[in-house]
Amino acid sequence: MEADSSTGVAAEVESLRAQIAQLEATLKSKEKELDTVYPYSRSYNKTSVVTILGSEDGGKMLIGQTLRVGGWVKTGREAGAGAFCFLEVNDGSLFESLQVMVPKEVADEVGGLKALTATGTSVLVEGRLDATPEGTKQAVELKATKILHVGPCDAATYPIAKKKTSYEFLREKMHLRPRANTLGAVSRIRNALAFATHKFFQENGFLYVHTPIITASDCEGAGEMFQVTTLLGKMKEYEGTPSVSAEQLETLKAELAAQGEAVKAAKAAAAANKEDKELAAASKAAVDKLLKLKEEFAKAEESSRIVGGIKRLPDGTPDYKEDFFSKPAFLTVSGQLQGEFYACALSNIYTFGPTFRAEYSFTARHLAEFWMIEPEMAFCDLADDMQCAEDYVRYCCKHLLENCQADLEFINKMVDNTAIARLQQVASTPFKRVSYTEAIDLLKDVVARGVKKFEYNVEWGIDLQTEHERYLTEEIFKQPVIVYNYPKDIKAFYMRLNEDGRTVAAMDVLVPKVGELIGGSQREDRLDVLEQRIRDGGMDIAAYEGYLDLRRYGTVPHSGFGLGFERLILFATGLDNIREVIPFPRWPGNASY
Amino acid sequence: MEADSSTGVAAEVESLRAQIAQLEATLKSKEKELDTVYPYSRSYNKTSVVTILGSEDGGKMLIGQTLRVGGWVKTGREAGAGAFCFLEVNDGSLFESLQVMVPKEVADEVGGLKALTATGTSVLVEGRLDATPEGTKQAVELKATKILHVGPCDAATYPIAKKKTSYEFLREKMHLRPRANTLGAVSRIRNALAFATHKFFQENGFLYVHTPIITASDCEGAGEMFQVTTLLGKMKEYEGTPSVSAEQLETLKAELAAQGEAVKAAKAAAAANKEDKELAAASKAAVDKLLKLKEEFAKAEESSRIVGGIKRLPDGTPDYKEDFFSKPAFLTVSGQLQGEFYACALSNIYTFGPTFRAEYSFTARHLAEFWMIEPEMAFCDLADDMQCAEDYVRYCCKHLLENCQADLEFINKMVDNTAIARLQQVASTPFKRVSYTEAIDLLKDVVARGVKKFEYNVEWGIDLQTEHERYLTEEIFKQPVIVYNYPKDIKAFYMRLNEDGRTVAAMDVLVPKVGELIGGSQREDRLDVLEQRIRDGGMDIAAYEGYLDLRRYGTVPHSGFGLGFERLILFATGLDNIREVIPFPRWPGNASY
Repeated sequence: MEADSSTGVAAEVESLRAQIAQLEATLKSKEKELDTVYPYSRSYNKTSVVTILGSEDGGKMLIGQTLRVGGWVKTGREAGAGAFCFLEVNDGSLFESLQVMVPKEVADEVGGLKALTATGTSVLVEGRLDATPEGTKQAVELKATKILHVGPCDAATYPIAKKKTSYEFLREKMHLRPRANTLGAVSRIRNALAFATHKFFQENGFLYVHTPIITASDCEGAGEMFQVTTLLGKMKEYEGTPSVSAEQLETLKAELAAQGEAVKAAKAAAAANKEDKELAAASKAAVDKLLKLKEEFAKAEESSRIVGGIKRLPDGTPDYKEDFFSKPAFLTVSGQLQGEFYACALSNIYTFGPTFRAEYSFTARHLAEFWMIEPEMAFCDLADDMQCAEDYVRYCCKHLLENCQADLEFINKMVDNTAIARLQQVASTPFKRVSYTEAIDLLKDVVARGVKKFEYNVEWGIDLQTEHERYLTEEIFKQPVIVYNYPKDIKAFYMRLNEDGRTVAAMDVLVPKVGELIGGSQREDRLDVLEQRIRDGGMDIAAYEGYLDLRRYGTVPHSGFGLGFERLILFATGLDNIREVIPFPRWPGNASY
Repeated sequence: MEADSSTGVAAEVESLRAQIAQLEATLKSKEKELDTVYPYSRSYNKTSVVTILGSEDGGKMLIGQTLRVGGWVKTGREAGAGAFCFLEVNDGSLFESLQVMVPKEVADEVGGLKALTATGTSVLVEGRLDATPEGTKQAVELKATKILHVGPCDAATYPIAKKKTSYEFLREKMHLRPRANTLGAVSRIRNALAFATHKFFQENGFLYVHTPIITASDCEGAGEMFQVTTLLGKMKEYEGTPSVSAEQLETLKAELAAQGEAVKAAKAAAAANKEDKELAAASKAAVDKLLKLKEEFAKAEESSRIVGGIKRLPDGTPDYKEDFFSKPAFLTVSGQLQGEFYACALSNIYTFGPTFRAEYSFTARHLAEFWMIEPEMAFCDLADDMQCAEDYVRYCCKHLLENCQADLEFINKMVDNTAIARLQQVASTPFKRVSYTEAIDLLKDVVARGVKKFEYNVEWGIDLQTEHERYLTEEIFKQPVIVYNYPKDIKAFYMRLNEDGRTVAAMDVLVPKVGELIGGSQREDRLDVLEQRIRDGGMDIAAYEGYLDLRRYGTVPHSGFGLGFERLILFATGLDNIREVIPFPRWPGNASY
């Protein structure tokens, strides 16, 4: 393609995009005018609060219309000396609540003003959308003409009736927690980031692959994995089984052997006197007894294998042939392995699913169950990998700024007043890239100059600690930075060995507030090098046959990375505890609902 | 809003939509012209096959350009008496492969023609895109000028080298399975349906909620659930613990009691003779011995509780205080409970995540691990619920027809020649709705008229079997049908009781080829009715406190449904076995990778 024509096309594309954007804005507002009823509430004829307050003019276009709004009262107060009340009604479609004015005579039909103003009360209100006086926060309010539904809420017993409740307290009321302001905002932010994730990868030609949750792969280190089993549930089945000791079994075995001898003798006697019917009968009886004893022994042997309700192998470990998958099975810690299988067939894939760690960690940064995004790309080297990671994170930030304005404003005001600025900076600035060796030099320099003391010593070869990572991104670069080419000894065996023989093509994306957000690498695609790395690591090469097959049959350079979804939300919101950014957090001793 | 103005706006909206669609089509083609390089392969300068063959003109626009294409050889053959070879190169971005012509002199630089033509070989080819002769299947082919990468593939050992391999065989080669034609097509169809799911719910104002995978909720029936535990992994820790029998423990207990008496006596003697130092010393010695015995007993008691490597309660069941979550934990069977928590705060939510059944089922329709979509809506009754289910399924069909044409054509040709017609019909026709009572009457009628015999008898009150469901949708209505208002006795306690007192507001969506695709209901939102239903079911009301709280504090009418994602793919593809439509199927005895 010639440079000139390319520029011409580029300009055309630009102009087309602008035209489409303009038309879409007009379409959006026209659609709202046309269709204010939320589609899956036709029976209730309900309009979402976001349809009213989320429009560009703050709902003015709908003034004069009769609308129905359903939701929960955030706050309510009587006014006009008992002539009416104001309700802030929230339906979760937007951070903001719609102000609803209910005249006393309307309220009286459903139990009076008091019954409506309690926090947590649900209402479906029909009314006319009115303009509010100039200077009021919202441009419109709903003047109720009819209350169609009231779900009362007793303030005296409502667990989260108070305005300010601690995060710890809310964690004990997980089923009501999404009704709290911050948790509601986080839910919408989490939703937006999840959809941004899908949009980004879909727009860029990645296929979404559901890698397995239950895995029996031998490659996974069983160290900090949850086991998935039906053996404990089966204990009951073995309850009546008599317990047989080793001694009893020995006794039976001896009896069996003795009877064996007896059979031999009886048979010999019978054979010697073929005409003797008594000897023949005795021989038959001996055989019958032997068979009975054998059966008894087999049963006892079977019983002796059941210890504490679980069938065992001779060494006392559970006999996993009895388990659901006929072998030990675990909850996945990563979908990378299976992701590589798919990338080495379909080129560009991503996963987005739950992953698990059975770590006894009670920190604000760890969960036993969390969600990960793991793209994997064929014909992709470390430079491409870094670019993809950067584009993805920046896309998410942009999407959030465009779609969750009210939530971010609340977060910025109540949780972290640098949240919006951080998102804006990340959305608009290319990430820095620095090699591990350069990063170590930079850190050593600030230590040498006495600018900063670290708890952990800085030397080439160390695994960077969170303090180092955060100093790099927050103090030295003051923006996201990608560190690449790490020492091979601190990274996984599957990362591609660089020419220098001492580093691997690995990269970490470090961001302010969180530190490491993404870890990725180019994968070792050379069969011989990979085999050597597995052997050097003292691992069982037979367990990696499938993985090695990818290098045997049409190997391609490929790369990928993993992002902990909750870390991304921590980064976006500035919240301190990861337990607040997942709907139902799991940690040691805790799995409510 | 007046009817007239509404019609005017509707026309405007129509026209805006058409304008945008037209501009977008132009934009798409211009973008392709501008940017043929796949963004995360910049280092390799690679163009996706979909960019070439997936465009409206079949790639003609790019004729004359120098492009690089990377992928795997589907088939290769030498031609022109050894002067060149043709490779069908597939990169997974599209069902179709791109034809690449490699002259002998180009191939010789990388080992000759033979090295390239083996199925499964990976190549990165640089060449010129040429027009093919009129009448050729594809409009373009790549004429190689350089081969930049070859990953050889030995046809003699390559497990899936043969053209036709059975599904069963492919399941044993799970890591190479996505390279097979059908499995590749299914991967793209699955991806399209997953994204369609997200798009549909996002466009309609639903929030994506990640309900938990590990659950310790008392409400879940533990019947067919997988248990999640760290107890089996801990067995090793108890390996050295001496085993203490009940008799030994009794002996120690008796000793302890005796020593207690001894202490009492010694103390009394010492108290009677306060000056006697020997008696005081004897008393002290007796106490010391008692303390030592107590310690010994405690240790023995602790040891006696460890049976078969697991600490037990007195009744022999595991002591779950020792487990990771301090109580029994399981893999979720549904996110509905937690979905309701969120819908009763944020109005409209959906889940899309893995669910599990520890059922010993080997059928072609069951998996131990599968993905479910569960929307839940506040201020939504059964009619709205049915509408949402219908709109969602039809949206998915439309999306698939628009985005996976080549894959569907292959499926239609090789798997099920009614697949495309079925999708088109569903996309374009509103679903029938029929009450359970009407459905039973219809089925009884065909039985009475001798038109059809069923294995299971048809009577009001029965749970519809797959044979009944399929007959309704495939024979009677010949299209998707929603059956609603089922007898309360065959449905779950949480479904809203209808006025008749004998049916509940439940619905099932039945589709040809699969039968039941969706099950849903309006939830019982009346506290007293729900409590009664729980009691009637003989369930423990205390276990449902959180669920009842939703009805105590601002209750709202709400509804939801569940769709098994793999069932949707079976419906779309007509494949017979559910193990083919999930990347890593799990069933009893099987969990490879």
